Amino acid sequence: MDTLESNFLAALDQVLGKPSPFIPLHEPEFGGREREFLNHCIDSTFVSSVGQYVDQFEAQLAEFTGAKAAIAVVNGTAALHIALLLAGVTPGDEVLVPALSFVATANAVAHCGAIPHFVDSEFSTLGLDPLALQNYLERIAQVTPQGLINKLTQRRIAAIIPMHTYGHPVSLGPLLHVAKHYQLPVIEDAAESLGSTYQGTHTGTLGLAGILSFNGNKIITTGGGGAILTNHQDLANQAKHLTTTAKQPHRWEFFHDHVGWNYRLPNLNAALGCAQLMELPMFLEKKRQLAQAYQDIFKEIEGINFIHAPENCLSNYWLNTIQLTQPSREIRDRLLTIANDAGFQCRPTWTLLHRLPMYTHCPRAPLPVAEQLEVSLINLPSSPKLVTGLRD
Amino acid sequence: MDTLESNFLAALDQVLGKPSPFIPLHEPEFGGREREFLNHCIDSTFVSSVGQYVDQFEAQLAEFTGAKAAIAVVNGTAALHIALLLAGVTPGDEVLVPALSFVATANAVAHCGAIPHFVDSEFSTLGLDPLALQNYLERIAQVTPQGLINKLTQRRIAAIIPMHTYGHPVSLGPLLHVAKHYQLPVIEDAAESLGSTYQGTHTGTLGLAGILSFNGNKIITTGGGGAILTNHQDLANQAKHLTTTAKQPHRWEFFHDHVGWNYRLPNLNAALGCAQLMELPMFLEKKRQLAQAYQDIFKEIEGINFIHAPENCLSNYWLNTIQLTQPSREIRDRLLTIANDAGFQCRPTWTLLHRLPMYTHCPRAPLPVAEQLEVSLINLPSSPKLVTGLRD
Repeated sequence: MDTLESNFLAALDQVLGKPSPFIPLHEPEFGGREREFLNHCIDSTFVSSVGQYVDQFEAQLAEFTGAKAAIAVVNGTAALHIALLLAGVTPGDEVLVPALSFVATANAVAHCGAIPHFVDSEFSTLGLDPLALQNYLERIAQVTPQGLINKLTQRRIAAIIPMHTYGHPVSLGPLLHVAKHYQLPVIEDAAESLGSTYQGTHTGTLGLAGILSFNGNKIITTGGGGAILTNHQDLANQAKHLTTTAKQPHRWEFFHDHVGWNYRLPNLNAALGCAQLMELPMFLEKKRQLAQAYQDIFKEIEGINFIHAPENCLSNYWLNTIQLTQPSREIRDRLLTIANDAGFQCRPTWTLLHRLPMYTHCPRAPLPVAEQLEVSLINLPSSPKLVTGLRD
Repeated sequence: MDTLESNFLAALDQVLGKPSPFIPLHEPEFGGREREFLNHCIDSTFVSSVGQYVDQFEAQLAEFTGAKAAIAVVNGTAALHIALLLAGVTPGDEVLVPALSFVATANAVAHCGAIPHFVDSEFSTLGLDPLALQNYLERIAQVTPQGLINKLTQRRIAAIIPMHTYGHPVSLGPLLHVAKHYQLPVIEDAAESLGSTYQGTHTGTLGLAGILSFNGNKIITTGGGGAILTNHQDLANQAKHLTTTAKQPHRWEFFHDHVGWNYRLPNLNAALGCAQLMELPMFLEKKRQLAQAYQDIFKEIEGINFIHAPENCLSNYWLNTIQLTQPSREIRDRLLTIANDAGFQCRPTWTLLHRLPMYTHCPRAPLPVAEQLEVSLINLPSSPKLVTGLRD
């Protein structure tokens, strides 16, 4: 084992203690009213599309994030799909997406019949780089009466999806500025950033719409679930309508006025969400403590940077992440091997989306930063409960 | 109140007793191990995409239906969407769909980028009429090396979706014969027919694939949920892969080899499903008792037929249904009004799908039977628990 490897393992040991036998990357924690709310669903028989918890969960999400409205749906992919449709994305359009993201970001574009168009990230946020974006669009795109046109493909570029990687907010101020200049609707993929703010404003609420995820690995979970956030009441109404089969209210008639989706979150899952939301402030506090512990350790270790919240941002530190100062797939994989072998579940970042077979032929900008990040990022165990194991 | 109206109300009274104040159309019943299994999910922290209940639910569904494999997903619409993709439906294709169905049947076709093509039903099953279908296809379609072509639109007809209305099996034998002759893959929409058999074989297992729904109003519920059934192991494997983001297994790499969906059923919902499946035989028995009670009453009432199981079929009687012998929207709506006013939740059948604005321009066969059924069917309260209220 070389110095970097032994230092890395020692740092994990010091922050987390010895695994016995295994410390997962991110585990949910159910220490609140989860059982009570689930049992109440069963007692009331309201487990499905009708019930108080969906309304309550949506109201509490709106309150917590400061969004005017939140619409609870089955998962983050579904939320992004509908948000893109409401932004006006139509089949054959292109949508700008970071190459460095989970596959769902691109899949939601594909589910609209649209084409992901990959753009680069920046080192400081791990998210879309506004300056690189501006330079790129200046070169390849043109604002026309039909919208922003990709001069190389002649297709319309219909929207952009900044994604707040591992909970760290994108440089939203400059990004929104570029998007506005190019008349691009912004749909924030805040799947990973519940609790993260950009200059005091919650991520997911600065664009036309944003989305959240409550998958089992997220900071709070509903089993599976997601939400659309928006400050536009008309968009919220449309989102609710489209995600609930577009049925018009009537005492008994079934009349649906649009192709709709069955994307509503069941009341059972919303019940879990209500209980989890009550725990969220505590989770955030613990996760920030854990991040601080990691940061304190890794600042002593040469060759490794701990990724901290961007300036003027509060990160939820969903997944704590280190970056190798010398990008190298070989070194990265050696560190992953020794950590996982020792029982610390660590993970690389995602394979860049333009390398996946179904997205190989999609348009893309130069991706020098994303390509470096791909072989230098490692996610560390990040469950809130790990804080109780923090060494003095 | 005329004779028909007072007889109808008296029949409901006699079977169900006086509502106090309201008898819903269909209520779930949680008298088994639902709480235990949900609490076990919470205790284990496995509420999401990993956990024993999804595997167990799938195995038990396969065993109960006799399908080789069952794949649990977020709802019936998602199940149908994926089943159609696996049947080879591509954008621009047409898919044959009964005009008399819930909107999800057509929506799943639209979600594939395909076009629903509406065909007629028969009185005896409320489902697709094989003979009318054969005559229609003989006239408008042609088998070519490229598949079955609609001569009027020049589009390919890529599949057919028989739907087992209110739990009554379609005439599958003749239908499969017609489908085979025209080389049409059959995807059974068995959303409403868990527990219903055609000549001893469970609905949803006779075509290429079938789908189930476990929405809150169905015979068993998972909050929201559905499943794909198939006897083809390769289709089952593909369905599992596509519904779980098409990720290739690896210790840490994220590599997805296809545009995928986040359609998997969370473990929490599967836990509810496992408990509900244990109750299913009892639900079926009670629902058949309730249907018998309705049938005994309505056979005495002139102007009303009770819809019973088709010959050689066992129906789950998901929703008990009467048919006016004189089709009339006016009479139907008067009966609906007095019943609902009295606290018996009754409903008409669905607005025929070709009347919905988004499907008005889709191709369709003559629909004389569906049009008569539309103004003559009424669903009656059908919860299994109503059996305890049956009068002697």
